[in-house]
Formats: sequence, C-alpha cells, structure tokens
Amino acid sequence: MSDIRTNALREPVEVVDYLFRRLHQLGVRSVHGLPGDYNLVALDYLPKNGLTWVGSTNELNAAYAADGYARVNGLGALITTFGVGELSALNGVAGAFSEQIPLVHIVGTPSTISQRNGMLLHHTLGNGDFNVFTNMSENISCEVAKLNNPAEIADQIDHTLRQCWLNSRPVYITLPTDRVTTKIEGDRLRTPIDLSEPANDPEREEYVVDVILRTLYAAKDPIILVDSCTIRHRVVKEVTDLINKTNIPFFMTPMGKGALDESDPRYGGIYAGSGSDPEVRKRVEDSDLILFVGALKSDFNTAGFSYRTSQLNTIHLHSRLCAVRYAEYPGVRMRGVLQRLTKKVDLSKVNTVPVSAKSRTIRAAGDSQVITHDWFWPKVSDFLRKRDIVVTETGTANFGILGTTFPPGVVALNQVLWGSIGWSVGAAQGAALASKDAKDDRRTVLFVGDGSFQLTVQELSTMLRHGLKPIIFLICNEGFTIERLIHGMEAEYNDIVPWDFKELVTVFGGSDKTARKIQIKTRSELEKLFKEDEFNKAAKLQFVEVYMPKEDAPAVLVQTAEQSAKLNSKLK
Amino acid sequence: MSDIRTNALREPVEVVDYLFRRLHQLGVRSVHGLPGDYNLVALDYLPKNGLTWVGSTNELNAAYAADGYARVNGLGALITTFGVGELSALNGVAGAFSEQIPLVHIVGTPSTISQRNGMLLHHTLGNGDFNVFTNMSENISCEVAKLNNPAEIADQIDHTLRQCWLNSRPVYITLPTDRVTTKIEGDRLRTPIDLSEPANDPEREEYVVDVILRTLYAAKDPIILVDSCTIRHRVVKEVTDLINKTNIPFFMTPMGKGALDESDPRYGGIYAGSGSDPEVRKRVEDSDLILFVGALKSDFNTAGFSYRTSQLNTIHLHSRLCAVRYAEYPGVRMRGVLQRLTKKVDLSKVNTVPVSAKSRTIRAAGDSQVITHDWFWPKVSDFLRKRDIVVTETGTANFGILGTTFPPGVVALNQVLWGSIGWSVGAAQGAALASKDAKDDRRTVLFVGDGSFQLTVQELSTMLRHGLKPIIFLICNEGFTIERLIHGMEAEYNDIVPWDFKELVTVFGGSDKTARKIQIKTRSELEKLFKEDEFNKAAKLQFVEVYMPKEDAPAVLVQTAEQSAKLNSKLK
Ligand SMILES: Cc1ncc(C[n+]2csc(CCOP(=O)(O)OP(=O)(O)O)c2C)c(N)n1
Ligand SMILES: Cc1ncc(C[n+]2csc(CCOP(=O)(O)OP(=O)(O)O)c2C)c(N)n1
Ligand SMILES: [Mg+2]
Ligand SMILES: [Mg+2]
Repeated sequence: MSDIRTNALREPVEVVDYLFRRLHQLGVRSVHGLPGDYNLVALDYLPKNGLTWVGSTNELNAAYAADGYARVNGLGALITTFGVGELSALNGVAGAFSEQIPLVHIVGTPSTISQRNGMLLHHTLGNGDFNVFTNMSENISCEVAKLNNPAEIADQIDHTLRQCWLNSRPVYITLPTDRVTTKIEGDRLRTPIDLSEPANDPEREEYVVDVILRTLYAAKDPIILVDSCTIRHRVVKEVTDLINKTNIPFFMTPMGKGALDESDPRYGGIYAGSGSDPEVRKRVEDSDLILFVGALKSDFNTAGFSYRTSQLNTIHLHSRLCAVRYAEYPGVRMRGVLQRLTKKVDLSKVNTVPVSAKSRTIRAAGDSQVITHDWFWPKVSDFLRKRDIVVTETGTANFGILGTTFPPGVVALNQVLWGSIGWSVGAAQGAALASKDAKDDRRTVLFVGDGSFQLTVQELSTMLRHGLKPIIFLICNEGFTIERLIHGMEAEYNDIVPWDFKELVTVFGGSDKTARKIQIKTRSELEKLFKEDEFNKAAKLQFVEVYMPKEDAPAVLVQTAEQSAKLNSKLK
Repeated sequence: MSDIRTNALREPVEVVDYLFRRLHQLGVRSVHGLPGDYNLVALDYLPKNGLTWVGSTNELNAAYAADGYARVNGLGALITTFGVGELSALNGVAGAFSEQIPLVHIVGTPSTISQRNGMLLHHTLGNGDFNVFTNMSENISCEVAKLNNPAEIADQIDHTLRQCWLNSRPVYITLPTDRVTTKIEGDRLRTPIDLSEPANDPEREEYVVDVILRTLYAAKDPIILVDSCTIRHRVVKEVTDLINKTNIPFFMTPMGKGALDESDPRYGGIYAGSGSDPEVRKRVEDSDLILFVGALKSDFNTAGFSYRTSQLNTIHLHSRLCAVRYAEYPGVRMRGVLQRLTKKVDLSKVNTVPVSAKSRTIRAAGDSQVITHDWFWPKVSDFLRKRDIVVTETGTANFGILGTTFPPGVVALNQVLWGSIGWSVGAAQGAALASKDAKDDRRTVLFVGDGSFQLTVQELSTMLRHGLKPIIFLICNEGFTIERLIHGMEAEYNDIVPWDFKELVTVFGGSDKTARKIQIKTRSELEKLFKEDEFNKAAKLQFVEVYMPKEDAPAVLVQTAEQSAKLNSKLK
C-alpha cells in the first residue's frame, strides 16, 4: 500500500498493536472478555504483545473479573464484541465506575464503512444507529474514544488510558474492524504515557496545610479515619507516612479495611457508626478532630448513615478537594496535602491518645457446633495469612468480614457501594489471575453467599482454565439472608434452588490434582481444616461449603438492614 | 390516612396492585426477575394478583427468559432492582428491542425522597444521579414511565403497556419504594387497556390496495415471501387468509420460518438468497412479483446480503409502511392492506404457478456414524411434532434448523438479528413456562451450542425449579464453530473449557424422576432415541449431548460466515 499517510510515518505500527503495547506498558498481562466476529482479528494480536487471553464464560463475569484484576494489578482490561457483548458487560463496568476502578473496556465494532452505510447487521437494533451502545456506555465511563480517524488514534488512546488511570474509572474504546490493522505513528510508544497527577498550586496547598496544622495542634485527641478513596486514589503510602511520623491513632471504615496494617499498635478498629464495636464508636465519636481520608459515606459503609460525628470536628481529604470544617478548598488534592503535612508537622504540638490495647475480635461463647456468624468471622482471623487477597460478596460476608482481623498486607476486595451480587466470583478470578501474573504467590480467599454464587457460577470454570488456586468459602444458608433481614424473612422470593454446589468443581473440569471439594457443617470440622497444612498451602483450587443457619447474620448487618428497610418505606 | 387525594378516589387501589392487575389482564401469568431491597415489598403483591414469581438465577437470564415467554405468550414481564439488577438485564432487553418483542421491564428504585435528597445509597454511581440508569434504558425502550406522581400513575401504566403491545418493543417502568402502596384510582381497571391498532385512512388504504392489485394481476408468477415482522406484528392470520384465497405460492425467510404451515402444498421453501436450496432460489429470484411481508433483510437472515431480487419486482408490506416498487406509502399499515386485498382480489385475474412437489429436505448420504450437520437437521424433521416450540441458538443451530422441515403449528424462536449467545437457554425456559401457564401441553425443544450454553447455564436450574420439561439438544463440538468459520479456525480464543455438561442436571437438583441425561455420539444412537416413546413423551426435562465434529457446519452458515469476514475486513 503506497498511501501517503502511511509513507509519512516514522515507525508505522498497527492500531491494535499500539493499543495492546500501551496496555502492556501499563502493567496489564491478561485481558478478559469473549470473542465475537467484530473483535476476532484483534485477538490475534494479543500474544505477540505479551497479553494472555482469558476466555471468559460470559461478558458480565469478564467485567467483574477485569475489575478484580484491576484492584490487585492497578489496571484491568476487557474486550467485548459490539452490542451483545458490551451490553452484557455494562453492569460490571458500571460497578467499576461506582467503585472507582480503572478498567479499559475495548469493544470490537462493525467497520466504519458498514457504520456509515447504516447496514442491517447482526448485533444492531435494526435501526441503523451505530452510536446507541456508545451513548449508553458514556454514562459509566470517564472517557470515550472511537478509534475512527487514523490521524487521531494514537492521541486518543494515550489520552483515554491516562484518564482511566488518573480518575480511577472505566474508559470505553471502540475498535472498528477496518481500523484494527490501520497503520499509525509508533515512535511515540517509546515514551510511556504520563500518569502523573497534576500537582496542587503550591500557595493554595501551603494555605490548606497551615489551616489543617492549626486545627490539629489545637486538638486534644485527633484521630485518622481511612476510607475507600485512600486506596482508590493511591495515597496509602502518604497516609502511612503521616501516621508513622505523628503516631496519630487510626481507624478504618468497612470500605477502607485492608488499606493499613491492623497489627499496628496505633490501629483502633473499624468505624461504621452504630455498627461499630461500642468502644471504637465512643473513641471515634468523642474525638475532637477526625482527619478523614478518602471518605465515601454510603449507607452500607456507615451501617445505615449512623455516624454521630460532627463536621465541626472533621477535616476531609479527597482526591480533588479538601475541607476543614465547613471551609472547602476545591481543586486541592490530598496527595500533595498529605505529603506536605507530614513534612511540615511540628510533632511537639501534636497531642495523641493511644488506643487501648485490647483483643479486637470478640469470640462467640458457647460450645454449640453450629457455625454462626459471630463465631465464624473471628475464627477466620486465625486462618488468614500475610498478604492474602480477601474477596467478600454483598450479603452476610461483606458485613461478617468486619469481625475478622487481618494480618499485615492483606488486601480486601469488596463492592460495598455498588453491591452487585455475583461480582465476587468474577473478581476473585481476576484477583487470583493478577497475583499469578505478578508471580507473587499470594492466596486468594473468597467468601461468597450461596445466592450470589448462582449468578456467576461459570467463573469457576475460568479459574480452572487458568490453573488458579483460590480458596472459596461458600456460605450455605439456603438463600438470600441479607434480603430476608430487610424484608420477607419467610418469603419464597428469598429462597434459592438447592444445588449440589461443590460438584460444580468436577463438572467444570476440576480433577483431584487441580481441585478439592470440602463440606463443613460443624465448628470442629472448620477448626480442623484451618489447621491442616495441605489446606493452608493452597496448592490447588479449594471449594469449601460452609453451612450456616438460614436466619443468622452478623450484628452490623442486622442493624444496616433495619435502617435500609426504614428508609425504603419512609413516606416523607 | 385521611389524605384529600385518597379520599376522592372511587375505588382506591395500590399502585403495585394496579400494575400487576394490568399485567394479568394482558395475559401475563409468570414474572421473571430477581429480588433486591428496592423491589422486595412489591414482590409480596404478585400472588394475590395471580402472578407467579419465577425466581431467576440472574437478571440477564431473566430478561432472556421473559423474551422467550413473550414470544410464546404474547407479552412478558421482568422485575429487577435499581442499578445492579436492571443493568445486568440490559443486553436481554436490547435483544427484545432489536427483535421486536413486547417486554415490560419494571425496576424497583429507591424512594422518591431518597432520590430527591441525592442520598449516597448502595447501587448508585456514588454521584447522586438517580436518572442515569433510566437514561441508559431509554435507548432500548419504546416508552419509559417513572411512577413518581400518583396523579399520573394509572395513565402512565396504561399508556406504557399499550405502547409495549402496539410497537412490539420493550418498555421501562420505575417503581420507587415509596410509591408501591400509594393509592390511586382503581375503577378504570374494569375497562381493559385498548390494544387496537389505529386503522388506516380508508382512502389511502384503498388506493394502495388498487395499486397492489394492478401489479398482481399483471404478474405471471407472483409469490409471497414471509419474514419475521409478519410474526412480530401479528398478521400471520391475514397472510394465511390471503394465501388460502389466492393460492399464491409462499416462501419463508430464516426469521420467518415457523410463521406458516410447511406441509401446505403451496409452500415452496426457505429463501435466504444464495444460502437457499438452488431450486428455491431460482423460483424466488425468477418470480416477476414478490409480495414481501414483514421483511427484515439483515445479514444473517439473507446469507450475507445475497438476495438477487429486484425492487422493481417487489411489493413491501410493513407494520407502518407499504411500498410498491419504488413508491412508498408511509403510515399505511399492512394489516388493513392484507385484509382488504383478500376481500377485494379478483381471483380470475391472478396467475399462480404451483411449486414443484419435492422432498424438501435433502438427506445426507453415506453410512458414516459421525453426526454431521447435513445429516442431523433433516433427521430432526422426523422427530418434531405438531405445535412443538423450537428454540435455536446463534451458531450452527440457527443455520442448521433451516434444513429441518416443521410439522404444522411449530413455533420457531431464534435471535437471528440480535444474536446474543446464551439467549436460547433463557428463552427456552420462558417459552416452556409460557406453555405450562397456558396448559397447552406443547413440547419445548432447544438446540444450543456448547459455547453458548456456558454463558447462561444456570437457567437449567430455573427449569428444574418450575418442573419444566424441555428437550435440550446440546451441540458438543468443542467450542465456537461459527466463529471458527469467520476467523481463527484453530485459534485458542475459539476454544472452550470442556465441561461434563450433562451432570449439571444433577448438580442443579434434577433427579431421575424429574430429569434425564443422554449422550449421543453416533447416528444409530440418535435414530434410536428419536424412536423411543419415553423420549418423545417428554415427561421430564431431557438433556441430550449430541457430539458433532469441531469444524463441521451447515452449508448456509459456511457461506454467511465468509460474507461476514469479507465485510468486516473491507477497506473501502
Ligand atoms: C445483580 C444483583 N441482583 C440482585 C441484588 C439484590 N441482592 C442483594 S444481596 C442479595 C442476596 C444475597 O444472598 P447470598 O449471596 O446468599 O448472601 P447471604 O445469604 O449470605 O446474605 C440479593 C438478591 C443485587 N445486589 N445484585
Ligand atoms: C453475548 C455474546 N457474546 C459473544 C458473541 C459472539 N459469538 C457469536 S456465536 C459465538 C460462538 C457460539 O458457539 P457455540 O454456541 O458452541 O455454537 P456452534 O459451535 O454450534 O457454532 C460467539 C462467541 C455473541 N454473539 N454474543
Ligand atoms: Mg445465602
Ligand atoms: Mg460449539
């Protein structure tokens, strides 16, 4: 092809190679998704760019998995086909938007020519509109790029990936079949995409820090409260540095859990309003200064909006805004503020009251053999190991895990805000794969309800396809316990079909060599399992059915459910 | 509550009762979906309104199933929860939009108060925007109703359901938690919703019919070609009447198959351009007048746009437009035109050439035991019975079924236009349930590929939950054969994990009493099975693995796939 545009290129590279090399540069090693005739040719280019095709079992699961992959790896990627594939993934991508996960959604579309001609193709709405699916995705993407015009494509890709990272939100990219192998300028691939966050205006930052320090010096009992955006906007290190320098005690919210080391003597516990341990609650709510980092005060993160803290005692640090009491400082980013705070703080002026040394997990008494939530979750503390990846599902698990103490370096994955059930199964697959890609030998431990599991069960097959070795605890409690607590304790709509769950491992291709099926009905059985070497080694996929009573739930869930029911039925 | 608005009501009825009674009046008996805290209270009201809750395994499957239910029953309904539930269903609803299926999607949302206050609730994007999901659904709904204002709700419901029916497309209804039990006027429930189609303007209709008749009388060899909109817009009876009166030979397209009786001596075969039987193709393309009813000339319905017919020989009848050669008559509906045509036609002036009596299914020769597509699909003709419901999946099945001759009254369900794989499993569940609800004792027969089945496998569980008895033929050919034909014959991305498929029946709760598992690897085995009384009686769910060669496919698919690959890679 002697095309004048191609001839002018210094280092011609095909669009698909450009895109995949950028993904690889950003740390992606596995790509989730399903083939479809509008993306098939693109998939041929994965291996040479160092990317593994996951071959997911459906697009929603793929999106969930890419989300889990991104949470562990830093960035995740998903390829679907036009219409049918991309729309199947939407709820998973929306979850990543809500939960602020950087996810690249690439959609193979009909050729620009077919689109221009409005052809009546399969996977269209039959109305010649080729923009409608993009329009839908625009609502849940921080950036959209249609790779139509070769002259713009490299810029589009770089800009879009940068936005994905900086906003920690999904982006949406369409790749038409006739653009896959179009040549574009490749020499810029030698310069990595600039991912650096814009710095704060120094004068403004200085000003905010001075206000914060004055407030801090005046406080008798300051504390730091760490929430989810600390993780999402990558300031865990900055917060840790501040704590290490100042010794200010810290607490975590349910969504913040896992951000910092719970074995740290300055760690005070999980704060979730009235859903907290009473001692923790008192300590946080009595504090005269809460330095609240990355707050996300959603209903399920606050035990039903049950905080009793005052804005007059609160400093908020956010990714793009800080606030001291009622004074807001828009555009001031927490990263710079935290760094400057740590540098500038005069330790002689900071008062700190240590947290009381106490056993932070309350053990259930009694010698029943029934596995209740108040017994189970503290027990899990003994089982978990340093740097485990712990995934919990919406339902009893998301609340129960608050009663588990994490060893250092444990990463916690949950969807407390978006709360789409079935997510955790995909997410665990993605997380385990990310860990495998990183060759870092972490265990992935999943806690999922029997109800949620049914929605995305086929992801077990993907785990086996890639030789992943998660430990899966399936909470068997005959259905939708969390929903029963909100409404319809005995209602049929909260029942599920009883499956012979663990046999799925075999059906999906697991053998004795690659997988193990376990059924646990008593406390002794579980204690024995937790002590077992082979189990702890996690050398194969392990699927553990844990039977728990239908109406039993963690106390914090009981309370949150009550608040939700009240809010739903409130008439004015 | 002494509310002035409530006191003025003649027959107060709760919003949810109003909605459910309307659904019941329109023939709905089972409602698909999943519970969520924003719809739980509403679900309590299903039984007293004569509606059964299906309790689907995930929302996408629920949407597919409601689509299948609607295709057999006339209307389908789906209830999901805000955000997570509704978005999971979107691809299924989009399919119903594309394929013109009347589906009512009801979404339980947070209360109007929570919405007004922009609360940070679970299942939101965390940005206080409660309209974003509705905005997304608007793209794939012919009508949207937010049931916020009690004074408008009854009107909204009636109008929306009417639009659903008339357009044969999905509608979207939000039901906020604080509106579920709000009282509205119920006396209008005594008048059924008016579903009648607006009549054509008589003068225009008369004019069009005269033009058509003149053209018809001049033709030497007119034929009728029946496509999918004949079924969707419910003019099968009108077309049948016209054929019965005139004896004009008729043909069907792939998507039209099942509309009319294939044992009728005037039936000429399936026309799919160059994908047709050569004799059929010649007859259709040589005809000097094609009366084309409800055409939908999509790529997969025309073997890759391979028609060789001329607009100069074609009359198009559509739901809201007719066209004779290049003259268009917008707003003229085919129903009235067909009725008037039949009434007015002067038989003495109509020429008809009978179709040649021939064995319409070509049998594969050879005495191999390998089950090939050219052997399998004609064989299925012998197995099918009158009034069977036949569901086929995108893949080899959708094309293979064109080689099967249907007994009278067989209804065919497929998604040739939208083509979302996994659909057929949900659709078969919905179809079987609709038939059960109608107590009409039809068999539901599903043909689905091993690849597609993996996406929606859990729908098997729903079938067992409701004691449905479909016959499921799983085409086991080691992955995505249809995709292999388009691109990547040997590519890993077209492989799937080999499952022990039939054991799923047991895992999902099927017992010997309720289900049967069968594995078929040779022609003799299949022939024997087809002759077996017990099998034909279909007194339980029957799951049949049929092994076919990885690279074998129906000829019409080979050709269509080639055309698709060409179109995808076309550069100008
Ligand atoms: C996709 C989706 N559909 C429906 C819901 C509503 N929902 C929230 S929790 C839940 C039940 C979860 O049950 P299970 O996983 O068994 O948890 P547990 O019994 O431990 O509470 C349901 C149906 C949801 N959150 N997401
Ligand atoms: C939801 C969705 N994802 C992906 C595709 C792309 N696609 C079309 S057909 C097909 C393979 C179907 O394989 P199978 O069901 O085994 O059929 P067969 O082997 O009989 O052709 C795929 C992946 C699709 N149509 N829909
Ligand atoms: Mg449960
Ligand atoms: Mg197959």
